[in-house]
Amino acid sequence: MLDQTEQIGQERTTNDGPIVPRATDFAQWYQDIIAAAELVDQAPVRGCYILRPNGYFIWESIQRDLDARFKRHGVQNAYFPLLIPMSFIMKEAEHVEGFAPELAVVTHGGGEALEEPLVVRPTSETVIWSTFRKWIRSHRDLPLLLNQWCNVMRWEKRPRAFLRTAEFLWQEGHTAHATAEEARRYTLENHVIYYDFLEECLGLGPVAGEKPPHERFPGAVATFTLEPMMQDGRALQTGTSHDLGDTFARAFDVSYQGEDGQSHPVYATSWGMSTRTIGGVLMVHGDDRGAVFPPAVAPVQVAIVPVPGRDDVSTRAVEAAVSDLRRDLSGAGIRVTVDDRPGLRPGAKYFHWERRGAPLRLEVGPRDVAAGQAMAARRDTGEKAPIPMSGAVAAVQALLDAVQLNLRARAHQMREARTFTVDDRAGITESVLKGYAFTRWCEDRECAADMQAQSRGTIRCFPFEKHGDEFRPIPEDHGPCGWCGNPATRRVLVGRSY
Amino acid sequence: MLDQTEQIGQERTTNDGPIVPRATDFAQWYQDIIAAAELVDQAPVRGCYILRPNGYFIWESIQRDLDARFKRHGVQNAYFPLLIPMSFIMKEAEHVEGFAPELAVVTHGGGEALEEPLVVRPTSETVIWSTFRKWIRSHRDLPLLLNQWCNVMRWEKRPRAFLRTAEFLWQEGHTAHATAEEARRYTLENHVIYYDFLEECLGLGPVAGEKPPHERFPGAVATFTLEPMMQDGRALQTGTSHDLGDTFARAFDVSYQGEDGQSHPVYATSWGMSTRTIGGVLMVHGDDRGAVFPPAVAPVQVAIVPVPGRDDVSTRAVEAAVSDLRRDLSGAGIRVTVDDRPGLRPGAKYFHWERRGAPLRLEVGPRDVAAGQAMAARRDTGEKAPIPMSGAVAAVQALLDAVQLNLRARAHQMREARTFTVDDRAGITESVLKGYAFTRWCEDRECAADMQAQSRGTIRCFPFEKHGDEFRPIPEDHGPCGWCGNPATRRVLVGRSY
Repeated sequence: MLDQTEQIGQERTTNDGPIVPRATDFAQWYQDIIAAAELVDQAPVRGCYILRPNGYFIWESIQRDLDARFKRHGVQNAYFPLLIPMSFIMKEAEHVEGFAPELAVVTHGGGEALEEPLVVRPTSETVIWSTFRKWIRSHRDLPLLLNQWCNVMRWEKRPRAFLRTAEFLWQEGHTAHATAEEARRYTLENHVIYYDFLEECLGLGPVAGEKPPHERFPGAVATFTLEPMMQDGRALQTGTSHDLGDTFARAFDVSYQGEDGQSHPVYATSWGMSTRTIGGVLMVHGDDRGAVFPPAVAPVQVAIVPVPGRDDVSTRAVEAAVSDLRRDLSGAGIRVTVDDRPGLRPGAKYFHWERRGAPLRLEVGPRDVAAGQAMAARRDTGEKAPIPMSGAVAAVQALLDAVQLNLRARAHQMREARTFTVDDRAGITESVLKGYAFTRWCEDRECAADMQAQSRGTIRCFPFEKHGDEFRPIPEDHGPCGWCGNPATRRVLVGRSY
Repeated sequence: MLDQTEQIGQERTTNDGPIVPRATDFAQWYQDIIAAAELVDQAPVRGCYILRPNGYFIWESIQRDLDARFKRHGVQNAYFPLLIPMSFIMKEAEHVEGFAPELAVVTHGGGEALEEPLVVRPTSETVIWSTFRKWIRSHRDLPLLLNQWCNVMRWEKRPRAFLRTAEFLWQEGHTAHATAEEARRYTLENHVIYYDFLEECLGLGPVAGEKPPHERFPGAVATFTLEPMMQDGRALQTGTSHDLGDTFARAFDVSYQGEDGQSHPVYATSWGMSTRTIGGVLMVHGDDRGAVFPPAVAPVQVAIVPVPGRDDVSTRAVEAAVSDLRRDLSGAGIRVTVDDRPGLRPGAKYFHWERRGAPLRLEVGPRDVAAGQAMAARRDTGEKAPIPMSGAVAAVQALLDAVQLNLRARAHQMREARTFTVDDRAGITESVLKGYAFTRWCEDRECAADMQAQSRGTIRCFPFEKHGDEFRPIPEDHGPCGWCGNPATRRVLVGRSY
């Protein structure tokens, strides 16, 4: 039987099943709202998922927003191959140790056994740095700032939609720099981009921070993370930026000739964000009625439900008003749908669009038409209020903006309310059942392992504070480690995690 | 030694090498302009290529344009898994026969041998139709119109950048319909979308038509193709739309309940366009100076080259004018770059941007500044003419539009001038050395095989005429087959192909 932290719920593929309340069974609730919103389906290969149109639409919206942020930061997109020679993965000792257990291996191609097995990329540092060797010769070739949008594969023993899937979609950025300092600076700049994206587009209210050494990416000298809190109090790591030092440049023998005519090592960063963020959106914003999508990524932003009249004349008046409303909203670039399915009562349609997470519902009945208004219902708060038909675009836009901001504010409030400053084992153990423990830690790996074994809490990060566009470590705080009592100088966030 | 038709040229990865003239060695010219424009690099795995930022940018531009066309046609994007159980591929006899020799096979995952081998998708009909079985129950579920943007893999013995690569990027559309007639109509509607895209965005001047039965997609009842002519007279198949009949519905046991309460077969279409189109852009528009990109997809649309003055004052005036010009063009959404690399003469910069295919170059020197103008040089014609600095945006936009249209017109003229109406073997044999033969064909597969063996020409298609938004077959033309003399009723296009 699976441990409680590995309870994953039963996957459903029909979209009209019941939604178990969060308080009853959070894992099952997660599966249920995914089914209700028709986001994924199971694939024939275990651990792989099909992204249905609603699920893929959210990913496309994430791509569009994030890609524009990268491009403003000077990054260019490229594409490196799916298959990587096994010998490349073996070149960097930590890297192979980290990824070997998760590899999918191609042994046959074109009807013949291959001389060397090829791995389906779990990440692309090795193939990219083998190429950078050709592209980087001189200081004029640096910095080199690339990103790719692609699929990767990491075999999963306990798959769960969006959170842990054998194949997933992501972006992976890879940059090369002339100095260690510049690589570190770039890593942190990128991490700010990630943070702002999670805040502004997805409203996840993450904590940003640095991972302890034992949680770094294999081969990295520093790994920065973003850790939004899910509604069950657990952390979901939703984006990491790695300062790779000269690890990969050494492994692939990449150096550059400086202005001084000498050969110098090259410093690397890499950073990735994946479809896992969609799992975060679901678990931060969803409620017992179903998914709740931030307007920035919602497949349908506004669902219009016409309420028929008692006679044909009033019904036709409703249809005409709805048609105009749809045209106006759609013309303004708002993603709107009219639910004119016959034979369904308006209440069933309200229910349908709530389950699917549409941020706003507009109800239009004969009385609304007579009053020149539509009734707007917010998905996040359930509040209903009329908006004028003339000027509907501005009113809807204002409501969508309000939903977007409220979801973000709610995520912050939840995390802050469930983050507990504690200084002893009991405090840590209790806190991680509800959310995050903010405690001093001695930075000893064995202490963290003991904490995890006994409390299921792991060191999520040394948290940062954001000052303008910069992350800074929080001030030191000397005292006994909250877990083992040995001297400590810094506080960390401890939490259970996905 | 490779046959002349398989001569592929030497791949170059440096971008400053010579460009062999087209007339000397077309295959080497192709490799040379790819290197000059820095579009791809070779990957460590044979047959795979890295899309460098310039190459990937063109693909992104293609994606954006084509994706919008699909969405206007009611198609939604989704994502199906990379790995497909071998047994799925085996389910449809023609399909497995067509793809088995090209498969890459995963035999190990997560450190263990798999019970069933998995293939890296060569195309996704099988996994998609195994899923459609779950999604299609009633007539209300139809039509189902999906598309995915993804990577696919088909092992290649003779790889060539963009044209034949082991892994490539593409989109594959898959639709399900209630009747055979609707599926056929949809296939043709999609083919019109492809045609318009190749015309309006890439300016390739393709012929649209239907493939003869022996050239159909494995499992299709009809395959429609687009066949632009390259500058060496050969055809490049750059997009195909397949009417799949109920082949895959039968193989995967998909049916739907109609309004009549009875079970009915489901009819399918699929259609794909890939990075191969970029090879078409290069071979249709390029010249002996390098690549020539249509403005719609050019990574850099306008390269501004400042020409320094004889003194600091005039040089600074040039810099200021160039800075304003860049700001104005960039603000209007034009992709502009200023080549301010120190230590390079303007002529070297002109040469650089010609090799990289920028459609327009603007030269700005002290005399231009004094005259309130910039000198505009078109990449397609080499024509130079001044444009006013005030109003530069409109002038540049007009020139870009003119380049876009001229490239398309040139492609049409080339194809028309090199398409020969012929009625005998000598005519066919001579024509396919220069371009296309337009000849009657008896529709016998053995005749086509003999024609190919002796002339290297293959039946490209039964060509269509476009009437408004519709393709129609050209009128019948009864007479002897141009190759074997047996009775024939229709004319075909014959050409050598990539």
